[in-house]
Amino acid sequence: MQKLDSSMMDFEERLEIDDFESEVMERIYSKPLLIKRVNTTSQIAIVGANVCPVESLDYEVPENELVNEDWRSRRTVQIFQYILLKWAFALIIGLSTGLVGIFNNIAVENIAGFKLLLTTELVLKHKYYKAFAAYAGCNLGLATSAAALCAFIAPAAAGSGIPEVKAYLNGVDAYSILAPSTLFVKVNVIGIIFGSIFGVAAGFVVGKEGPMVHTGSCIASLIGQGGSRKYHLTWRWLRYFKNDRDRRDLITCGAAAGVAAAFRAPVGGVLFALEEAASWWRSALLWRTFFTTAVVAIVLRGFIQLCSTGTCGLFGQGGLIMYDISAAKVVYSTPDILAVILLGVIGGILGSLYNYLVDKVLRTYSIINDCPNTDVSGNYKSFQCPPGHYNDLASLFLNTNDDAIRNLLSTNTVKEFHISSLFIFFVAVYCLGIITYGIAIPSGLFIPVILAGSCYGRLVGRLFEPISKLDVGLFSLLGAASFLGGTMRMTVSLCVILLELTNDLLMLPLVMLVLLISKTMGDMFNKGVYDQIVKLKGLPYMEAHPEPYMKHLIARDVVTGPLITFSGVEKVGNILHALKNTGHNGFPVIDEPPFSDAPELCGLVLRSKLLVLLKGKAFSKDRVLAGNKVLRKISELDFAKAGSGKGLKLEDLDIQEEEWDMYVDLHPIANTSPYTVVETMSLAKAAVLFRELGLRHMCVVPKSQGRPPIVGILTRHDFQPEHILGLYPHIRYQQ
Amino acid sequence: MQKLDSSMMDFEERLEIDDFESEVMERIYSKPLLIKRVNTTSQIAIVGANVCPVESLDYEVPENELVNEDWRSRRTVQIFQYILLKWAFALIIGLSTGLVGIFNNIAVENIAGFKLLLTTELVLKHKYYKAFAAYAGCNLGLATSAAALCAFIAPAAAGSGIPEVKAYLNGVDAYSILAPSTLFVKVNVIGIIFGSIFGVAAGFVVGKEGPMVHTGSCIASLIGQGGSRKYHLTWRWLRYFKNDRDRRDLITCGAAAGVAAAFRAPVGGVLFALEEAASWWRSALLWRTFFTTAVVAIVLRGFIQLCSTGTCGLFGQGGLIMYDISAAKVVYSTPDILAVILLGVIGGILGSLYNYLVDKVLRTYSIINDCPNTDVSGNYKSFQCPPGHYNDLASLFLNTNDDAIRNLLSTNTVKEFHISSLFIFFVAVYCLGIITYGIAIPSGLFIPVILAGSCYGRLVGRLFEPISKLDVGLFSLLGAASFLGGTMRMTVSLCVILLELTNDLLMLPLVMLVLLISKTMGDMFNKGVYDQIVKLKGLPYMEAHPEPYMKHLIARDVVTGPLITFSGVEKVGNILHALKNTGHNGFPVIDEPPFSDAPELCGLVLRSKLLVLLKGKAFSKDRVLAGNKVLRKISELDFAKAGSGKGLKLEDLDIQEEEWDMYVDLHPIANTSPYTVVETMSLAKAAVLFRELGLRHMCVVPKSQGRPPIVGILTRHDFQPEHILGLYPHIRYQQ
Repeated sequence: MQKLDSSMMDFEERLEIDDFESEVMERIYSKPLLIKRVNTTSQIAIVGANVCPVESLDYEVPENELVNEDWRSRRTVQIFQYILLKWAFALIIGLSTGLVGIFNNIAVENIAGFKLLLTTELVLKHKYYKAFAAYAGCNLGLATSAAALCAFIAPAAAGSGIPEVKAYLNGVDAYSILAPSTLFVKVNVIGIIFGSIFGVAAGFVVGKEGPMVHTGSCIASLIGQGGSRKYHLTWRWLRYFKNDRDRRDLITCGAAAGVAAAFRAPVGGVLFALEEAASWWRSALLWRTFFTTAVVAIVLRGFIQLCSTGTCGLFGQGGLIMYDISAAKVVYSTPDILAVILLGVIGGILGSLYNYLVDKVLRTYSIINDCPNTDVSGNYKSFQCPPGHYNDLASLFLNTNDDAIRNLLSTNTVKEFHISSLFIFFVAVYCLGIITYGIAIPSGLFIPVILAGSCYGRLVGRLFEPISKLDVGLFSLLGAASFLGGTMRMTVSLCVILLELTNDLLMLPLVMLVLLISKTMGDMFNKGVYDQIVKLKGLPYMEAHPEPYMKHLIARDVVTGPLITFSGVEKVGNILHALKNTGHNGFPVIDEPPFSDAPELCGLVLRSKLLVLLKGKAFSKDRVLAGNKVLRKISELDFAKAGSGKGLKLEDLDIQEEEWDMYVDLHPIANTSPYTVVETMSLAKAAVLFRELGLRHMCVVPKSQGRPPIVGILTRHDFQPEHILGLYPHIRYQQ
Repeated sequence: MQKLDSSMMDFEERLEIDDFESEVMERIYSKPLLIKRVNTTSQIAIVGANVCPVESLDYEVPENELVNEDWRSRRTVQIFQYILLKWAFALIIGLSTGLVGIFNNIAVENIAGFKLLLTTELVLKHKYYKAFAAYAGCNLGLATSAAALCAFIAPAAAGSGIPEVKAYLNGVDAYSILAPSTLFVKVNVIGIIFGSIFGVAAGFVVGKEGPMVHTGSCIASLIGQGGSRKYHLTWRWLRYFKNDRDRRDLITCGAAAGVAAAFRAPVGGVLFALEEAASWWRSALLWRTFFTTAVVAIVLRGFIQLCSTGTCGLFGQGGLIMYDISAAKVVYSTPDILAVILLGVIGGILGSLYNYLVDKVLRTYSIINDCPNTDVSGNYKSFQCPPGHYNDLASLFLNTNDDAIRNLLSTNTVKEFHISSLFIFFVAVYCLGIITYGIAIPSGLFIPVILAGSCYGRLVGRLFEPISKLDVGLFSLLGAASFLGGTMRMTVSLCVILLELTNDLLMLPLVMLVLLISKTMGDMFNKGVYDQIVKLKGLPYMEAHPEPYMKHLIARDVVTGPLITFSGVEKVGNILHALKNTGHNGFPVIDEPPFSDAPELCGLVLRSKLLVLLKGKAFSKDRVLAGNKVLRKISELDFAKAGSGKGLKLEDLDIQEEEWDMYVDLHPIANTSPYTVVETMSLAKAAVLFRELGLRHMCVVPKSQGRPPIVGILTRHDFQPEHILGLYPHIRYQQ
């Protein structure tokens, strides 16, 4: 206990030193410390209330005797195994996501076909009411099943899933989103599959690409768990994957595979993962993602060829290109380009309005204060548009969304749709898409947005018909592009996805133009829809660009105390006490005499490793270095990071009273080279560093000597605007 | 002088401390210091001999009073100007690169057309010898002009340029490659343009994409110079671009625009920049690059439409798709896939052999010991294949490379080429491509590789004709893909470039498969061709992955001494002496009593800023803090980074004898938050950090207190294998 008290005292002392220091600083650097910090503790409580129980991921490569030992023990053959396994995993992810995509597609097409067959038959017999009842009954049944599956089995499967995947890849593991337990994820995956099939086939304005991305990521996460101990499916060499870095890579591949499978767009999938999903990227990953989506493409191509003989029911007629419009002749001149620019501007505005409304609707459904792992309410009843509303525009409304898009994008069919029909359908789809997104079924945003956008584009095309040479089908494509640009705010990936969806390369310059305009317009009003949802869910996402006011603060300003440190060789009791009474995940280890001449930062030790160390009971009666003895006692396998939510807990320890006074050597497990920044570094610079390196903890060290060797630890939460503005409420208005 | 001596003493002392320290370390971490370091000074000399005079770029955001002041002085309107200007620059780069591309294309097509017209006329009159003489004369004339232009005006324009651009974007500024002076670059650009036109039209097996990338980057670099003082074209707000970060972004855009213009492949251009050219990437850059290539696409599309009326001579018949093969029906089954896999394997091997031979040829031309800025020899005479060799396969040899590729990729033309003709052409092109690359004219690698690859693919297609359903034209495409994969080792970008070149989306799964196989095969033997050339030129490129032996060294192990430090307020004489006697570009600034209680690291000061400070003569008689007085004396404009090779030099200073004993305050210009690593961090981890942050200097700080606050500085050269293996020759063989 003495240790904790002394650290408290250090903290008090430190504050005094800080005050002195800041005066000196001010004199030297003439940097005015602008605003007084408000009381810390009250703020923590406020911040804490809104934040969901999430775990930050740690992409840092730790360095210590444990890791070195592990590295030395790896033979060439094991490194080869590891590389081979990475590719095998990518193969498995590609294969399974591809198969899920096909299965999903076949089911959707066949269920829709069955509905159509049923109603057509009744309509031909002039039994209109029965036809309607049958159609409505089918839809109601399917929708209820979808909602029930979600509500009772996998609530986390509701919604798009892309924001959660995006947050995971940014370093935020919201429990149950990807993997609370292997079994649960399995159910989760199945839930998504069934749910999305039902959702798509029930006539909701929802897409399958978000759920497919989620599915791909779940498969990847499942593989990344490194087998299952419960079912004795653990291989020794799978432990190399038991870290956040390798899991991140796998999940990136999974997200790419999801898009590739949903849109039959392998290159688009890679770019989606790069541009939208991932926060970190490296060229090796580009290649692996590419491999994964190539597998998906080959699987899809194989099944489509197989199904072209008619063995899969109604599936497979589309071929690899979902909405082929390459037959249209692309001719345009100046008036067309002006029309396209106008289309882009309005599309961008409508897109950002869409985002705004989705946000409002989600807030109304009160997801804000619920955490992602709680039931996001099964009130599909709030789906208020009367079913009778559907009977009007049968070729659009009574189809699957895919076929509706195909109709809208069809070229050389100028007069097929009345302007009034297009307008009604546009308004309906625009509203329905917004309302549907919040309900309990798994649903994507791409398809609703493409649907509304292509309808809007066709509408504009019809209006510009007198002066434009461009086919209305192509206007429809541009409308879809403008809406996508206005909501999603992606560029290259959307461009490639649209190219792969429509196979019309000659439209590329116009699509690029429209995307640029609509994204620019949208960015003037609000953020991309996925960013909005991430923020809405309260996930502590690290933005690529720090807020402007962070330039006026230094790293020391936002560190929250009191800092709890351990000695290099620490009393078991102190460690237990600290683990019990704080929620910290990383503790600095300070070497003190006799282990060093003066106090020095030995490294950073993680809660998870401490728990394993304590469980292994490598204790000694005296305060001495244990060295490799610890490693001989505990296998390195035990230190590998367990799956999300599966690691050791404090309750699992069984430490006797007499062991509390024994010592344990933390040197072998402490990360001896944590990333450090000097306390006077501006918060903006520290934030960029933190994000670029994908850290969980960043040590703040003092500028001057003679003080304790560490000032504090910065975590993801310390960079969140809520936290900073809580401490310095007035800084927001500083330029 | 006393300072320098004392720092030398510190260094001696430090070594002793280090020895003691390492023992302690060894005890605590049981990390054996494996191999004794060899004598340092001799090694520096050896390393120095091979390294060309390059300047490292610095992508770090410095923090000090100067920067803060600059930031505070920026009004909202200026920030808006800055953003607007960024986009305006991207627009200009896109426009000019697009125009250069069109100009280039028109000239090539027309010169080739003229040659064809001339010879055809003579052939029709049965004057075969005259026809040959005319053709050979034309080629000789064009080739001589190209070589002369290169040799006398812009030697740096020779070769592909992509390796140099790649090195620049990695942080290595090899003088004269992009911008020795504004004027020179202008000539350079023109040289490249003319040179590449002549090169391409003279019948050499060379491509225009490398030179186009170089051209795009040069245009970007020219813009990034921030105007010209000489011609009074400097705007105050252009200074915001006078730093390496903004220039890097511009040059990335330029590289993308180059590929976009050369292949009419805007998305491919973005991906090329992302996958091959750039070492750092951020999502904002993706968008800007996309904008640039969109501009290129729109310019190209506009001119092609304009030229379709025949106003540009023979240019513009191809349309936006250079080698359209979308007419072919894509049908394939299992035997085809086996054939394709074989094709990929052999293509990969031939591709890596190509790299090996290019390397050998370049070494024979002895570029190795020459620096990029010296004349790379004008010996186009070593182009030894007799011109008479050409007369055989007229439809391939007597065409521009573009038309030859078009012929090879043409579908539904199985019997058009004899197997023997294909074979001869393949061998000839393969050899010619390798030999030509080293000579003095600007030449790309893409077109020769595509030419050889498509010929090889067609050959394989003919051989597999009995069992394969796939069109030989498509085999030709796959052959080109396999060669590209085998030499360039790109994946997604090649895939998209090929897609945009040929407009055949249905081939995507097969192209992906072939690329994956050939890249894998190639990677087994050697590196990508651009990486090889970068290495050959001795540019200190930072690899993404550290070498395995770096895991066994710590940061302190490779720091080269003696370290020269300055006091916070330093004597002018000491600074001058240090600047004169060392080549260092960064000097740590140490604050000592009375400015601090104990010696502490105040920051890092750059040579370029020191020169400006000394030039401004903000000196004082006493050792006191000057604060903002310095800034009032020297405008912040003076501190902006000048164009490559244009900054102040030591000779430009005019310091009087009596000023040597005066003091100058370094606080306002020192970067007060340099990135630091602890001395015990493994070299591998430090290397990753260094590269990810794009640093020029990284400070190594001591682990324990009571020692000088900085151990040394790591620069790019300290991470080079040559340097490390010079210090520790035996570590290479450690696992």
